[in-house]
Order: sequence, then structure tokens, then C-alpha cells
Amino acid sequence: MVIVMGPEATQDDVAAIVAVVQAAGVEAFVSRGVRRTIVGLVGDVAQLDQGNLRGMAGVRDVMRVSTPYKLVSRENHPERSTVHVGGVPIGPDTVTLIAGPCAVETPQQTLAAALMAKRAGATLLRGGAYKPRTSPYAFQGLGEAGLRILADVREETGLPIVTEVVDAHDVELVASYADMLQVGTRNAQNFALLQAVGAAGKPVMLKRGMNATIEEWLMAAEYIAQRGNLDIVLCERGIRTFETATRNTLDVSAVPVAQRLSHLPVIIDPSHSGGRRDLVLPLTRAAIAVGADGVIIDVHPAPETALCDGPQALVDSDLDVLADVLHTFPPLLGRAPAVAAVAP
Amino acid sequence: MVIVMGPEATQDDVAAIVAVVQAAGVEAFVSRGVRRTIVGLVGDVAQLDQGNLRGMAGVRDVMRVSTPYKLVSRENHPERSTVHVGGVPIGPDTVTLIAGPCAVETPQQTLAAALMAKRAGATLLRGGAYKPRTSPYAFQGLGEAGLRILADVREETGLPIVTEVVDAHDVELVASYADMLQVGTRNAQNFALLQAVGAAGKPVMLKRGMNATIEEWLMAAEYIAQRGNLDIVLCERGIRTFETATRNTLDVSAVPVAQRLSHLPVIIDPSHSGGRRDLVLPLTRAAIAVGADGVIIDVHPAPETALCDGPQALVDSDLDVLADVLHTFPPLLGRAPAVAAVAP
Amino acid sequence: MVIVMGPEATQDDVAAIVAVVQAAGVEAFVSRGVRRTIVGLVGDVAQLDQGNLRGMAGVRDVMRVSTPYKLVSRENHPERSTVHVGGVPIGPDTVTLIAGPCAVETPQQTLAAALMAKRAGATLLRGGAYKPRTSPYAFQGLGEAGLRILADVREETGLPIVTEVVDAHDVELVASYADMLQVGTRNAQNFALLQAVGAAGKPVMLKRGMNATIEEWLMAAEYIAQRGNLDIVLCERGIRTFETATRNTLDVSAVPVAQRLSHLPVIIDPSHSGGRRDLVLPLTRAAIAVGADGVIIDVHPAPETALCDGPQALVDSDLDVLADVLHTFPPLLGRAPAVAAVAP
Amino acid sequence: MVIVMGPEATQDDVAAIVAVVQAAGVEAFVSRGVRRTIVGLVGDVAQLDQGNLRGMAGVRDVMRVSTPYKLVSRENHPERSTVHVGGVPIGPDTVTLIAGPCAVETPQQTLAAALMAKRAGATLLRGGAYKPRTSPYAFQGLGEAGLRILADVREETGLPIVTEVVDAHDVELVASYADMLQVGTRNAQNFALLQAVGAAGKPVMLKRGMNATIEEWLMAAEYIAQRGNLDIVLCERGIRTFETATRNTLDVSAVPVAQRLSHLPVIIDPSHSGGRRDLVLPLTRAAIAVGADGVIIDVHPAPETALCDGPQALVDSDLDVLADVLHTFPPLLGRAPAVAAVAP
Repeated sequence: MVIVMGPEATQDDVAAIVAVVQAAGVEAFVSRGVRRTIVGLVGDVAQLDQGNLRGMAGVRDVMRVSTPYKLVSRENHPERSTVHVGGVPIGPDTVTLIAGPCAVETPQQTLAAALMAKRAGATLLRGGAYKPRTSPYAFQGLGEAGLRILADVREETGLPIVTEVVDAHDVELVASYADMLQVGTRNAQNFALLQAVGAAGKPVMLKRGMNATIEEWLMAAEYIAQRGNLDIVLCERGIRTFETATRNTLDVSAVPVAQRLSHLPVIIDPSHSGGRRDLVLPLTRAAIAVGADGVIIDVHPAPETALCDGPQALVDSDLDVLADVLHTFPPLLGRAPAVAAVAP
Repeated sequence: MVIVMGPEATQDDVAAIVAVVQAAGVEAFVSRGVRRTIVGLVGDVAQLDQGNLRGMAGVRDVMRVSTPYKLVSRENHPERSTVHVGGVPIGPDTVTLIAGPCAVETPQQTLAAALMAKRAGATLLRGGAYKPRTSPYAFQGLGEAGLRILADVREETGLPIVTEVVDAHDVELVASYADMLQVGTRNAQNFALLQAVGAAGKPVMLKRGMNATIEEWLMAAEYIAQRGNLDIVLCERGIRTFETATRNTLDVSAVPVAQRLSHLPVIIDPSHSGGRRDLVLPLTRAAIAVGADGVIIDVHPAPETALCDGPQALVDSDLDVLADVLHTFPPLLGRAPAVAAVAP
Repeated sequence: MVIVMGPEATQDDVAAIVAVVQAAGVEAFVSRGVRRTIVGLVGDVAQLDQGNLRGMAGVRDVMRVSTPYKLVSRENHPERSTVHVGGVPIGPDTVTLIAGPCAVETPQQTLAAALMAKRAGATLLRGGAYKPRTSPYAFQGLGEAGLRILADVREETGLPIVTEVVDAHDVELVASYADMLQVGTRNAQNFALLQAVGAAGKPVMLKRGMNATIEEWLMAAEYIAQRGNLDIVLCERGIRTFETATRNTLDVSAVPVAQRLSHLPVIIDPSHSGGRRDLVLPLTRAAIAVGADGVIIDVHPAPETALCDGPQALVDSDLDVLADVLHTFPPLLGRAPAVAAVAP
Repeated sequence: MVIVMGPEATQDDVAAIVAVVQAAGVEAFVSRGVRRTIVGLVGDVAQLDQGNLRGMAGVRDVMRVSTPYKLVSRENHPERSTVHVGGVPIGPDTVTLIAGPCAVETPQQTLAAALMAKRAGATLLRGGAYKPRTSPYAFQGLGEAGLRILADVREETGLPIVTEVVDAHDVELVASYADMLQVGTRNAQNFALLQAVGAAGKPVMLKRGMNATIEEWLMAAEYIAQRGNLDIVLCERGIRTFETATRNTLDVSAVPVAQRLSHLPVIIDPSHSGGRRDLVLPLTRAAIAVGADGVIIDVHPAPETALCDGPQALVDSDLDVLADVLHTFPPLLGRAPAVAAVAP
């Protein structure tokens, strides 16, 4: 941490800072210039409150220089991690396709979507039984009935399932069905939920909050990690900006940035970020090209009847192109092509 | 709802739209121009999925023209509402001051802050026992012990208490102590929590999500209202923008806009939006002047030792100025000046 | 400036930094900790390129600690300035009302608007002869004919005129008519224009770029000041955010922040920020209350026929309320009420 | 255009709207529902002011349904265009690499950078002689001396040159040297400059304003096109958001969106958007994969001494990787690989 004193700061102001800092067992190095004094802090600064230091007399600015997350940081864990979900790897050597319907509606629709996913090369099935919806009048998901449908479809297709949980107290139930728990963008700072999924013993996919900086996203992951769970996959899904042509603005730069700061795998959701079917394939190509460790994509057998986010779902006629992208792009980045594990 | 067809749309495309719409019991008016056709929908359009219509052949755009919230809308409830918290009104005739410490730390600190609040004219006491913190390494609040301190201080000062709840399953406990439940900005789309506070039988203060549009904020309020609770106070607390000089950007325009769209009272939090003590008084004046129904302000007897957000808390020497602002500005807007109810 | 070295930095890396810095005549203080080394730079760091330092081996971050603007900074000029426009002061002791039509359309319309402005207490007349329009198909202003109309109306009403210039090579012409030159939000980083108005010998009103941080706004002002012109008034007019209920988001906090960083007066434009007539009065009250040194407001005798921004213009029936606001709020802040100088 | 009337609108209000609209030669279709009336306008609505209509009695909203740009729109020009710069195509069949130094500093540095560019496969040379800088104390470019250096290097390497112009009155001079004129992000709404480059008879590269929506970007292009110049290449270079880990947020989705709305080629600048050398290659891959028609990249023989944006420039050791990306990715999208035209 670095404390910058204002030009008006007195020697006593500096001495007061040094006293507070040293009382916390941290070393203080004072650099006194003609117009300005800088105090560099070295040691375990985690216990010093940056804000309170900023409130002391003569202080102009307080700057943090170390990361506020430890367990997910790459500083202490230089190798990038691979997370396994029902035996399927997500990590630096592969490009994993997770696909399926936005929401589980019926057994038929879910199975049809799962078979579509498989055809495109997916090795994991996505599908929501609990849906967080901005409008209270929108379809909220089937709940446990949806989880049972997902389990049946897993049985039939062999695809492990990824599904969202929206309430800390549903975690145990959802974890009893799911192979991976998803925390959505609206819950990216629902700390009770983060702690609950951290304790559930299942891999977690953590979507970036639509207003979260990359640093805040990693701090959210740290909440999960603190409960002993490091099987976390980060998912970039677009941030909120002034642009309205797309639902959110996909921040592809966040992938290499997060991969450099954290050892966790990072994937991209090209369906929810753009919110438009015609953008899904271009953004999928961009995702793989920028170095994402996987993509998660909505598919639907009949999107015009979908109860949720129909217009962004890929349809039958898109699948061969998607399969081709997943076959041809990853090798250019030294990764294995995504291939469907086994036929249904 | 209005459906705009693209120039390439055929007569059959239009007919298909009309059929879908009429099947849902909604009337369709077709306006056919030289280059473009527009279909106006009139009736109960809530059951039509805007997204799915957008996915139909020939459709270029689908625009909603009615509000997606009903219970909190001013359309069906033209009079602005007054919410009472432990007998204290928040509404169009007054400017209510809610003040207290950001976090409850000790009985002494909480009582001292409550007396400061009262001196400034506060009639409600704020104080957090459960704190949502971005960093998992930051102070998370005292929990129920903090609630007990708040109850004791209420006993001593007569000030009803406003306190945050961060987990749906703590709602009953928190509601057993609090006079008003607060939902924070990070939980503005935690729908399980919104529904739980809606069912708790206590007034609710709903902070705007830092990335929420005004419309999304009102939809969040609608979640609470749907559970039968219309004692909701909206609180603007700054939105996230590119500007970094302030913690968030206080959106004062949101007050008159929300008051025109909804009958609910709207207050402002000048402490958390700016994140700087030197901005609290100017922003408080702006809040009252723009027409806010109240303000919620951090005060602390010793901010340099505060466990949370010390640098934004007002201190003893600020109180007389604050009291003066609350005495002189409201009458210019035809409102009663805020005055402390009774001496401690 | 502070240079933070990464954990991997070697002693040689640090020595290389120190050599570069000292070669530029700047002192370097090295604070060596267990995990990290910090180098504090003291002296004239303006000639060191922050970016290039960041590119050197072992460097993790480079942080600037002094302001990148000098002439407009309050550090070297602690007293707040008053700018005089045709004898009318804009500064800390007054609240100046600038009003008039968005665009000059006809002599009659301009005179009518000027008389409206005067009735509300305006002492300066605004009006655009050159209009920067996002769409090339929109009305672009009358040019010099508009300037002549403004001069005639000044003759008739006694109100000095404020008008926009959009091209560096029109500055001389516009300055020959205007009492104050306005630089609009779209030109906030048009450096050729900033330099030209800096050399024109007339006071300048500099609108904040809709995407400019407060620091960038002050650097734009520095461009003007460098040409010897310190008669600059800053104008906050809303920034671009995700919220679409208002045209832009008025950043009232920017007023006290900019006034603390710079000695220049700061005013607010409540018409263009909100873009809605119903917001103008609430935002005007907020502007004065937050401490703005003035407001600039659109008025129009017949807004439904206006060629530019009609829907945000105040009309006849608003003027008495506006006059009342300008009479009653400023005294609460220790400022003189705005009053029309002389009858027409 | 669609006009939505509020529930309170009277029959007279509707009649007034219809009268105004028909007076402008536009047809009005009235759809009268139980709670709401909608008026659809068909015809040449360009002359109707959306804002003024919104100001009429009973009107709740006015929605535009056609694009506010015509010449650059794909509606009237379905084939995507190819722009030729000194014989080098930029369009749907190729991926063009433009590379060179951010700023021209010396003949040696510029030639060295040009040879680096060529080695990586560039067929056009970038380099700034006029630099728009946020800080007035930063290096502002060599001016005409820089243009002469560029011309000499073109002579020596055969690479046509792309260079920025920042002032309308320099356009003629810059156009006498340049093969393509660049308009930078800070001038994206400098309409005088846009018109001047439109009249200069040289191809133009138009960077997106960092706060411009895609629609505003296309309207800026329309300003150029109106002067008879359709040789315009759009360049996405990142937008301003709340994220601070990168200088700006590269909006890759803007490429397919803009290509669908406009027939103009769209390229990406991965250097200025990220502002970090380590992001340039990942973002270049993403740019090609998303479908960009080219990329423009900073290279520098000695970035640590660069006078401008050194830390984002690629260096010698990056060139082979860049060349490989440009050789292997385009064919996957059915485009020709970028190859250097001729040896120096």
C-alpha cells in the first residue's frame, strides 16, 4: 500500500500515519520530496483499512498495490487450473462446449435440446430449472421438477448437467441433482449464495456480474474458494454499457486479463451477452480465438415457443456451423477440438 | 406493444403475426405503408413474449409501450404514497432524515452515533448488523448481536431502526428486531430476498442496484409488492459509470423520474454514492432540492476507527450544518422541516 | 509518481528504473519490502512518460500522484475565481442564470426568448447559431445570420450573449459577435478548437464531454488556459451512462469535486442533461443546492415548432417558478439571488 | 415512426397529431385500443422532429423505426463494399493488416517500424504526424515534418500510408501526403472535420467515438458520405465503460452489428482498445474471428523510448506470431490470408 500525503501535510501528520501503520505490524518507508511526501507500506497490510487511512489528516490518496484475493490468484498458483465436471475437463488444453436450453420446459424439449447440443460437440448440458427474471411476471422455472427432467436427460444422453441456483437454501437440493452449480450475473454479489455453493462440494460456474469489474469478479470467486472449493470456472457474459444494439457488451479482453490474474478457467457465454441469435456464432469464434477455455450456448428445438430468451437460441440449421467452428479453431490455439464424447 | 415489420416482410409474415396475437386474445391493428408495415397491439399483452415475437419472420423490432410493473405504478395509483416506519412518515409532505453508523460495532459507538443522528434532526436510526462486503476479508457485521444493540439503542433514544438483511432466510429474524428492512444495492436483483421481505410484514427500503435502470428498480419493487407489501421506499444511491472521482455517480434525476412513474416515496443516500465526507452535505442539499422524500446518512463518533466506510461518515462538527440544511431547505419545497421527535 | 515493482523484479530492474529517473533529474526513493519494492519519485516528473516506465522490466504499476493540469488547478491558486462576461459575474458569490433558445431561428423567436429569459432573472442570453448535430439531416444553425440576430437582440435587451463555436476557423468571426464562446460536449477533446478559443480573448464556457472524467475535463480547460486565457467557466451537462430514462445522467457531484480541484467557476445545464422539460426545474434546484455558480437553461416561446431540442425548453408558464427558485435558493448558500439587471 | 398516446389523451389530441403529420405529407394510421391509442406514421418522416412530436399534448412516446443514415446503410446497398487504399483492398474477401508506429518520431524509427509492419504481413503503414493528446503537456506530433517522413518511408517500402488529421483546415495538406485519412475517436463528432475529410477525395478511416453508439458512429460516417465520399472504413477501438483493467472495452460485437447495418468495411484496433501489449495478439485473433475486415496495430522498434503509447506497441519478438495469426485464421472465415505485397 502507498500513502500519498498532500502538499499541506505536516511532519506530525506523517508521524501519525507511521505510528498507526507500525502499530499494525506493518513497515513504513517515508520518501520526503520538495512538494510531497510518500509513505510506502510493506508487510501484511490486509488488516489496515484503506478508507480509514484516507480519512487521516494530510492524506491525499491511498493506493493498494497487492491483489485483494489470494486463493484464486495466480501469484501463488502460477499453473492454470483444470476443473473437471462429471469427468469433463475445462481448462487450458481444451475448448469445452456447454449447450442446452435456457430454461427446462418439458422432458421432450429438454431431450431434443440435449441431442442438438451433442450434435454440435457439447460435452456438458446446460438448462435452467430456477430462473432469475427481472420481471416478476415472467416464467420463473419449473424448480425441482425441472431438475428431475435434467437428471433423466443426463441418464439418456450421458451429458453431465450444469444448472443455476438462485437461493442459498436451495443449494443442497440443486447440488443433489447437478454436476455443476451455476451462479448467475444477478447473484454475483449475493455473498450468502456464494458461500453456500462454496460449501456444496460441486464445481461452480460463476458468471461475471454485469456491473462487476474483473477484480470484483475474482473477489466473488474468493468467497467460494474460502469455503474450500477451488473447482470454480469463471464465465464472462457481457457487461452493462451505454450501447443498446446488444443486450450487454461482451468484454472479450476480460478473458486474457482474468487468466493472467487468476489460475481459474475462464469461459464465455455468447448467447446472453449479445442476446441475438445472429451474433452467437461470430462471438463464439471470437471467444475461442481470444483464448477462452470454453463456451456456453443456448440451443432450442423451437425457439419461437421458448418460455425464456428464445430469440438468442441457436436452431437446428446452426449446429453444423457451430460444430465446424469448434473443430477448426481450437487447434490453431494448441487446444484439442471439442468432440461429443459418445453417441446417445 | 408495437411490432415493426422490415421492408422484406411479406403479407404472409404479417398474417402470421396477427394470428399469434389474436390467439392470445389481443387486438392487432395493421398500418401498411409503402416501405414498411406496423402492427399495433391493444389489450392484455403481458402474456405475449416480446422476444419470441421478435424472432418471427419479417419482424424488425418489437416495442413495449406499457409499464412492466403494475402495483407500484402511478398509472393505477395517481396519489403519491406515504410510508410509515414506527410512526415516522416518509412521503410527499416531509423530508425524513435517517442517520446512524454504517455498521453496528459496539453498544457505545451505536448509541453515540444515534445521539449524533438525533441532534441533526433524524427521526429514524440506520445501522448495519449484516454487511454485504465485496471483499471476503472485510468485516461482515455482528449479526444478531448487532440487532440486539440496535434494539437497546432504540429503547434508549426512541428512534425506530432501519437495518439491512442480506439473506432470505434471515428475514424473519431481522424483521423481529427492525422497524424497516433494507435491501442493499448488491441484492437489488436477489429475487428470493425480495419476495421474502415482501412477505415479512415490515416496511422495506429498496436501494437501487448500482447497474439498474429506473425501470428495473421498479420491477424489483414489484417483486416485493406482489407479496402484499406496498410499504416500500425507493432509495437512489448512485450508479456505476466511468467516473472514478466519486465511488458511484449519484443520479439525482432518478428522483423526479421515479416519482412520476411510481407512487412510492423516493429518498437519497448521499453517503454511499459519493463515498467522501466532503460531498455529503452538498449532495444532501441537492437531494432535498430535487424533491427527495428523505435522506439516509452515515454518522460516526470516530470515523477513523470505523470498521466500514469510515471516510464517508459525518462527524460531530458537521451536525449543526446538516441540521440547518434540513430546517431551511424543505420549506422552500412546501415540505415540513425535519425535526427530532423528542429529546433522548 | 510511484512505481510499484512486481514480486519477480530483480535488484537490477530496480537499478535500471532509478537510473532512468535520475537521468531525468528526478529523485528516486526506494522502499524495499519482503515481497515487493516501491520506488517513489519526487521532482519534476512531467517529462517522464508513465507508460514507458510501465513497460520496463519488473514494473507492475506506475501511479501518478500529482494533477496533470497546473494553470486551472486550485493547488497553485487557492481562491476560487470569478469570470466576468460583459460585466456579468460568474463565480462563488452569485448564481448566474444564462437562458435563451437552444438555436437561433428568427429575430422574433430570439427576441421573444430573450425577454422570457430576462423575466426569469437571466443576465446572460444563450442561443446557438452553429449547432453540432448528431444527424447530418438535422438543422445545423443559421451561421453568421444567427450571430447578427443575437447581436440585435443584445442591443435591444442589454443581455450579453453566449454562443457556441464548433470549428477552430470560425472562432474569430464568432468572437467578433459574442461576449462568451461556448465549446460543446462533442468538441470537448477537439484540441484545435480549444487552442483557438484560448487565443480569442473572450471568456469561454467549456462543457464537459459526455464521456469525460472530471480530470479530462480539467485537462481540456488547461488547453485553453495555456493560450493565456483563464476566463473559463466549466459546465456540467450530464454524462453518458446505461440509464435511458434521461438523455444523459446529470453528475451533480462533479460540481463540488471540480470546485475543489480547480479555481474555475462551475455551472450546470439542466436542460440538455435531462432532455425533458419536466426535469428542468427540479434539476435547477439541485444545481443551485449542490453549489453550482450558475445554470444555463433553454427557453422557447413555442417549443413545439422549435428546430432543435424543443421538448426540453421551458415555456412561459414555467418562468415565474424559475424566477422564484433563483430568488429563494441562492441566499441559503450565502449567495446573492439572481436578478435581471435592467428592464428591456 | 410510431406515436404512442398516453391513457389520458383525448380524441382532440389524436386529431391534432394527425393534422400535424398530414401537413408534412406523411400518412397517419390510428390504432385505437381500450386503454391506449397508437398512431403509425408512414412516408417521408425525416422532416418531422421526433422531439417536437413528443412535446404535443397526450403523447407518451415517439419511436423511430427507420435508420437515420441512408448512404452508408445496407438497406439500400445490400452488397458489402470494398475500399481500396493505394491499391490495397479492405473488404469482405480479405483481412488487411495496417501497422506502424503510433507516432512518427524520426525517419529511422519510422522506417524500422515500417519494416517490422511488413514482416508481419502489413500492406498499409499507419503513423501519426498530428496527435490528439488528452494532456496539453504531452507530445503533439511532428506535423508536416512527420508527413514528409511518412512519404519517404512509403517510397522506400512501397506501403501506402494511413495518417490522422485532427483539424478541418489541415485536411488538404494531410491529404496531399496520405493515402488514407484517419479521423480519431476524440473527433468522432467533430462535424466540421467529418465534412472536410468527406470532400478531400481520399479514403477515410473513421474510428468509433469512445462514447458513441453504433448508430451514432454510422451517422458520423453519413456526414462523410454526404460530401460524396463513400470510401469509408469503420474502425472499432473500444468504448468507455466502468472497467479499468483495460484502457477501453473492445466491443467485438460491434463488428457483425455494424456490418449488418452498413455496407462499409469494419476493422478493429486491438492496440488502443486494450492499451496493453499482452492483449494485442489475443484481441487480434478475436478481431479476425468475429469477422473484422482488417486490424490496425502499433509496432515500435524501441517502445520504451516511444513518445506516445509505447506500452501497447508490439516488438520484434511478437512479429512472427502476428504473421502466423494473419496467415492461419482468415482462411477459416473464407478470406485470403494477409501477405506482404512485395519485399522492400
